[in-house]
Amino acid sequence: MKLTPVLARLEADKEAALERLLTLLRIPSISTDPAYKGDCDAAADWLVDDLRTIGFDASKRPTPGHPMVVAHGGEGAPHLLFYGHYDVQPVDPLELWDSPPFEPQLEETEAGTVIRARGSSDDKGQLMTFVEAMRAWVAEHGALPCRITIFLEGEEESGSPSLVPFMKENAEELQADYAMICDTGLFDSRAPAIIAQLRGMLTEQVTIRAANRDLHSGMYGGLACNPIHVLAKIVADMHDETGRITLDGFYDDVPELSDEIRTQWENLGFDHARFLGDVGLDTPAGEAGRTPLEQLWSRPTAEVNGIIGGYTGEGFKTVLPAEASVKISFRLVGQQDPAKIHDAFVKHVEARLPADVEAIFSDGQGSAAGYMNTTDPAFETARKALSEEWGMEAAFTGCGGSIPIAGHFKEVLGIDAMLIGFAKDNDQIHSPNEKYDVDSFEKGKRSWARILDALSA
Amino acid sequence: MKLTPVLARLEADKEAALERLLTLLRIPSISTDPAYKGDCDAAADWLVDDLRTIGFDASKRPTPGHPMVVAHGGEGAPHLLFYGHYDVQPVDPLELWDSPPFEPQLEETEAGTVIRARGSSDDKGQLMTFVEAMRAWVAEHGALPCRITIFLEGEEESGSPSLVPFMKENAEELQADYAMICDTGLFDSRAPAIIAQLRGMLTEQVTIRAANRDLHSGMYGGLACNPIHVLAKIVADMHDETGRITLDGFYDDVPELSDEIRTQWENLGFDHARFLGDVGLDTPAGEAGRTPLEQLWSRPTAEVNGIIGGYTGEGFKTVLPAEASVKISFRLVGQQDPAKIHDAFVKHVEARLPADVEAIFSDGQGSAAGYMNTTDPAFETARKALSEEWGMEAAFTGCGGSIPIAGHFKEVLGIDAMLIGFAKDNDQIHSPNEKYDVDSFEKGKRSWARILDALSA
Repeated sequence: MKLTPVLARLEADKEAALERLLTLLRIPSISTDPAYKGDCDAAADWLVDDLRTIGFDASKRPTPGHPMVVAHGGEGAPHLLFYGHYDVQPVDPLELWDSPPFEPQLEETEAGTVIRARGSSDDKGQLMTFVEAMRAWVAEHGALPCRITIFLEGEEESGSPSLVPFMKENAEELQADYAMICDTGLFDSRAPAIIAQLRGMLTEQVTIRAANRDLHSGMYGGLACNPIHVLAKIVADMHDETGRITLDGFYDDVPELSDEIRTQWENLGFDHARFLGDVGLDTPAGEAGRTPLEQLWSRPTAEVNGIIGGYTGEGFKTVLPAEASVKISFRLVGQQDPAKIHDAFVKHVEARLPADVEAIFSDGQGSAAGYMNTTDPAFETARKALSEEWGMEAAFTGCGGSIPIAGHFKEVLGIDAMLIGFAKDNDQIHSPNEKYDVDSFEKGKRSWARILDALSA
Repeated sequence: MKLTPVLARLEADKEAALERLLTLLRIPSISTDPAYKGDCDAAADWLVDDLRTIGFDASKRPTPGHPMVVAHGGEGAPHLLFYGHYDVQPVDPLELWDSPPFEPQLEETEAGTVIRARGSSDDKGQLMTFVEAMRAWVAEHGALPCRITIFLEGEEESGSPSLVPFMKENAEELQADYAMICDTGLFDSRAPAIIAQLRGMLTEQVTIRAANRDLHSGMYGGLACNPIHVLAKIVADMHDETGRITLDGFYDDVPELSDEIRTQWENLGFDHARFLGDVGLDTPAGEAGRTPLEQLWSRPTAEVNGIIGGYTGEGFKTVLPAEASVKISFRLVGQQDPAKIHDAFVKHVEARLPADVEAIFSDGQGSAAGYMNTTDPAFETARKALSEEWGMEAAFTGCGGSIPIAGHFKEVLGIDAMLIGFAKDNDQIHSPNEKYDVDSFEKGKRSWARILDALSA
């Protein structure tokens, strides 16, 4: 049995593995802000160097944006492609962090030790789970258990503009039997899970422009158009009183849940009161007549992620602003087509523009929802391996988040993905004080060792 | 005739007068931002020193906020109280200024030379028109033509929190027959005017708070409440489709125009196409069925001056923010009571809060609209003096802006105010690249010399 010494090696090496993760977390690889371009590059270099020490043929590959890291190693079936991303979210508002986001801290909490840092959970901590499993395997057995390609990107938090072009240009090199994506969480913060359906996403930015400059609200108020009012109406009209989205044709390609999946999800015993209670909420606020898990996993959304206009500093400035803008993201399900939703959004906005007012749109970027073929026996093999590590049955679940990479693997490379990750709901990803449980990190490494063993057997 | 040598003196001294104004404009006395507290103090000191050189008994008077400047001089009827403010608006967005806001530039334009600087029009350039007229009078005649009190504040752009308490504490000292307020503009940028009615103002700030932290819109979107959506509905619901404000009882104390005033205003020949065209607009956007001057001068408004929530930086961050907030100002007319409007606004907001969501209100600060008694013969005397300087009939007009001081003079001191100023619509007050025409400055000084002469005759 090849697994036992690998698990022992992971245990023996755990302090060093943690130090490696902390080193990676110290690199502020914020992809969305051009000021951190050099840091994204440094994170890619660090990963290339680390993968080479394990024996991978690893390289940093340029793109018009941040570089990819691609590494090849091992022989034999199946050929697995592991995906993660080394870039992280911005850290603002910085003043809400209890410790500097790029100076990782080990903190003792009631739930055990956590690693506190931006990117600890999303996604550096997670991608290092499979890297460490492979390191331990090579250390014990001198080689990887099967053919492995590692593919890490640095633009996941900024819309992955280089991803699909890179996959297309390197489609042959990136071919594999299965993609293993480590960027998701435990179900309900406790149970191992393989996510079998993911919402897609479309991001839009629109600026509403009226006068050619800011105006004094006394001199012009009541006569000149206020773009904040126009924008408020555009946003308010996006949902009706039942929480449904009003864009024309928005629900055309949204399927109802099958009875089978509805039953599976009911059996998961999701505790939405705890889920919402963790963040100070109580009442599901989405579409009327849908269960909480439906709202999160299988229903589309339209959410404003940011809005700004006029004077927002200290005190008051009685201005009628020249412009106001929003960032909106749509989560997509079923066969919803991002291009079609983009068009419907543009029409929704344009129908609400008074005289003299224009709307400037960003290029909406999007990806469709993803659905995996869980009838392939490899899925069941991986699910069993996960169940063994965690001492409970792993589930096939949905996910409210959008991991467009899963769709791209399917569309560009024709391969199905297994989405397996170890984050918890309270990891505060995308928020101040992001953390990753050391327990997630430890069990994550062991989970991958077991999955590698099971799939290569 | 005492006027002629004073006008000659103003002409002879005009270079020096301009230099004095530029010196005052170099002091960045932004009252709303605590970082400029020392500069507000410096502007008050400069004015005290300057008024003493004219012979005024001038002093800087402390308040809990920025200081007042009070100066006394002259003898004989009538006793005139001159008001202006030495504080200025913030300058952001700074990058839209063509020259530094506190390094005044003299620029040649098609319409003549302009003084480009923050505060040039609002209100340092304007207050210096009466100071220079008094300086010239004293220089020629050895004394002021009548008893004069000058009263300058430093909090006009930040809600004047110290003004009413100071007026109440010093009511005896500030008594006068008329208040002369120099903080308004020419009618339609061309005709001299005495403003006889002013809208009041109420400012409100409200923050909508949902979850106890920012959330990932994939993990929580569709289930957790988005405070930006709640805020958008609150703002969108403030106006109906005809542009009327929907707050309960909002129009209860709003009178219709008298036939007499309606006729007067029609005779003014207001060119709303030019007025709006100057700022890149074309179509009146206010209440349906109201003329543009009615919309500006005699109808109440509710305008959002600023809105912010969520991620507003570069790129995208798919966050559900914990909170979002707006700054709103109401312009009030007739007998609208700021306290009653505040209550109606609070009810409007609270009626639109879903479960789990709270609204945090600032203390709404307000002042009612002001109406002057233009049947007093002194008003007609001043109007004729203005007409002589400008070579056209001066008008009694309304004003969309709120100059709460006019109401306070009436309520606290029991005196009527004459609102006479020389700003133009394109002065860009409260915006980048504020300017004041040298022609406004020159004719303004001469206008005050004529008014002093006519009222003291």
